[in-house]
Amino acid sequence: MRMVDLIEKKRDGNELTKEEIQFIISGYTNGDIPDYQMSAFTMAIFFQGMSETERAELTMAMVHSGDTIDLSEIEGIKVDKHSTGGVGDTTTLVLGPLVAAVGVPVAKMSGRGLGHTGGTIDKLEAVPGFHVEIKNEEFIKLVNENKLAVIGQSGNLTPADKKLYSLRDVTATVNSIPLIASSIMSKKIAAGADAIVLDVKTGAGAFMKDLDDAKELAKAMVDIGNAVGRKTMAVISDMSQPLGYAIGNALEVKEAIDTLSGKGPKDLEDLCLELGSYMVFLAEKADSLEEARSMLEKAIQNGDALKTLKTFLEAQGGDASVVDSPEKLPQAKFKIELTAKEDGYVSEIVADSVGTAAMLLGAGRATKESQIDLAVGLMLNKKIGDQVKIGDSLVTIYSNNQDNVEQVKTKLYESIKVSPSPVQAPPLVYATIKE
Amino acid sequence: MRMVDLIEKKRDGNELTKEEIQFIISGYTNGDIPDYQMSAFTMAIFFQGMSETERAELTMAMVHSGDTIDLSEIEGIKVDKHSTGGVGDTTTLVLGPLVAAVGVPVAKMSGRGLGHTGGTIDKLEAVPGFHVEIKNEEFIKLVNENKLAVIGQSGNLTPADKKLYSLRDVTATVNSIPLIASSIMSKKIAAGADAIVLDVKTGAGAFMKDLDDAKELAKAMVDIGNAVGRKTMAVISDMSQPLGYAIGNALEVKEAIDTLSGKGPKDLEDLCLELGSYMVFLAEKADSLEEARSMLEKAIQNGDALKTLKTFLEAQGGDASVVDSPEKLPQAKFKIELTAKEDGYVSEIVADSVGTAAMLLGAGRATKESQIDLAVGLMLNKKIGDQVKIGDSLVTIYSNNQDNVEQVKTKLYESIKVSPSPVQAPPLVYATIKE
Repeated sequence: MRMVDLIEKKRDGNELTKEEIQFIISGYTNGDIPDYQMSAFTMAIFFQGMSETERAELTMAMVHSGDTIDLSEIEGIKVDKHSTGGVGDTTTLVLGPLVAAVGVPVAKMSGRGLGHTGGTIDKLEAVPGFHVEIKNEEFIKLVNENKLAVIGQSGNLTPADKKLYSLRDVTATVNSIPLIASSIMSKKIAAGADAIVLDVKTGAGAFMKDLDDAKELAKAMVDIGNAVGRKTMAVISDMSQPLGYAIGNALEVKEAIDTLSGKGPKDLEDLCLELGSYMVFLAEKADSLEEARSMLEKAIQNGDALKTLKTFLEAQGGDASVVDSPEKLPQAKFKIELTAKEDGYVSEIVADSVGTAAMLLGAGRATKESQIDLAVGLMLNKKIGDQVKIGDSLVTIYSNNQDNVEQVKTKLYESIKVSPSPVQAPPLVYATIKE
Repeated sequence: MRMVDLIEKKRDGNELTKEEIQFIISGYTNGDIPDYQMSAFTMAIFFQGMSETERAELTMAMVHSGDTIDLSEIEGIKVDKHSTGGVGDTTTLVLGPLVAAVGVPVAKMSGRGLGHTGGTIDKLEAVPGFHVEIKNEEFIKLVNENKLAVIGQSGNLTPADKKLYSLRDVTATVNSIPLIASSIMSKKIAAGADAIVLDVKTGAGAFMKDLDDAKELAKAMVDIGNAVGRKTMAVISDMSQPLGYAIGNALEVKEAIDTLSGKGPKDLEDLCLELGSYMVFLAEKADSLEEARSMLEKAIQNGDALKTLKTFLEAQGGDASVVDSPEKLPQAKFKIELTAKEDGYVSEIVADSVGTAAMLLGAGRATKESQIDLAVGLMLNKKIGDQVKIGDSLVTIYSNNQDNVEQVKTKLYESIKVSPSPVQAPPLVYATIKE
């Protein structure tokens, strides 16, 4: 088999076989196939696409390019959730305790990464004493006991995907549905997921700005999951504005506590109930989505969700008293209000610009070496559709450094538009894909 | 400027500017732009094409990636001819002396290369004593005196094209009209051509098997030439069967001598008169193509063409007596007839298979290290449309080694088909593109 012939085959719109895809991915992983052939191949995929079968084979070839996590010692169906990323997305912090409270095992492998705010591990480290440095056996024991534990990423998972993603990033081939879908799905499957719930974001603050593209990506991932024996469902949710109010690490932990207490932002609670009921249903803890949702609502009302959060934090060294006394979380020195300059209705909150403002404060990493300030961030006081009057606070800025507050304010004023006439709030969920 | 943005721009079907194309080509030549970005870029060109302006800019950027030959000390308009390659294509050997005989300066830079038979220099070396190791000043002096000289390729011509071609060869991006056209044109322009005549071959033995593709390529090259101030014309000629009768180095020299004497194969003579009249016209030695053609016919009839050949060979150390006594050319030890096994009409002579048979005999190089045997090759005794009877010789095999004659015969029998019913000979010239 010669790579040049396989590039030509894809270039001409023909379907590659399982063996051919395995040859390409294993050859690329071990260095037999050079970057310059792989980049021509991915550009050919950009134009010619891949069939459903090819996408499934590509996903599994990437899964098998490195280590896979064995979660078989954990009882029950392991359901993982993946979000395509957005701003102020606190769903993971809420969903873990929420679905664990109704008996769904959550064995979360998480990372730090780059972005507007930290990764799930960074956020959780805002809880004093909390750590993820636990052994694999301990991790599995904790999930079996408490239904929830979080561990740092370990092992050489999907090296083909890592190498391929770096290459796509510099060759203008990121934006290809089959490649995005197989990349995401391969990582979830290698991390041990039996079933997968996807939260595909759309709107100005999302990677998929266009709703049709988001639907196509969601459908592509659901098809892959179902083709390789991992039941998969997807929700397409709004990221035209940030989700919830908090954008920042400790601020999001506080917001998660509020939401698990039934006092969180409506949009965040709704999306968590939606995603959570898919997780409960796929974990076969409920016979219908409706039943799953009412179990979750009950867990919030009766305090089980909050109790699960406390148990989980304590088991990994965290000070669970933050749940009742959130002032023990890292606090910023300065609180500055960004006030409305005109009367009207909030018509736009450009999510990624707001995220960039949070990063300027130090809430996220611009490079791998950046230090995160867990205390800083933004709290939105208004969302799209809300009425505002001159002088009302639009955003509270939490800062430890007054040097660049003016820059942050300018960025926020650019990101938040006020219209003289009433504005309809965008829907939270645009579509769901169940099979 | 970032290469990834330029790949994306082309990927999305937008037109690149002159500065962007220069950035890409100079960056690739000096190694700033890696192969993996260039291969993604060429695959994007494969799908999105290039505008006429982009093609012209790409051609000139490749011309300026290395040395260019200065032929300004040669009097007159320097017209170069290029053929896209075929089997038994003796046109260059004929055209040089033919147009030089009517005053067109031919400053031929030629190579050896790989293929079914040797390059022009290999073929000419079948003339005892002939050599191309002459200094540049001597070369220019000879062209001014005799209107014809041949020199080996020197200097670092179009390094961008060399590097790019090697990359395209292993990334399935050879087959792109804008890239083929700019590659060919850049080499001709860097070699000093003021005007260019193109012989684009089509049919089973050609790179462009399909007539429409050949027309598109010819038009693309003519457009580039005219856009960059090099008058260019193209002829689309048949390569469904080999041109002329001879396939082999000394055999083709002999055939060229025959043709310059007016006793060559009809198809070879016709094509040389066609291409030659374009060269004479573009060199402004005639006011019309008709006048140019009659000048060339006269040069054959009155012996001027043959005389020019002799002067040229002698000036570069060759034994010009071979012209009158071709038996002084290298002779093969064995002559074996391939006879017809059935009565009928020749319906097919697959040119590239016949070429491969010649290479098996030793007439061409399979690798750069291969030694060429100048004496061996094939003489076709029948062409498509000719009637044959059982036992008639289809081909005479000239060999120095009887070991693989059976293999050569098998290959030839596979390549030459005989039909029971009469067959029409294919046309020699399918189209001409004059602007």
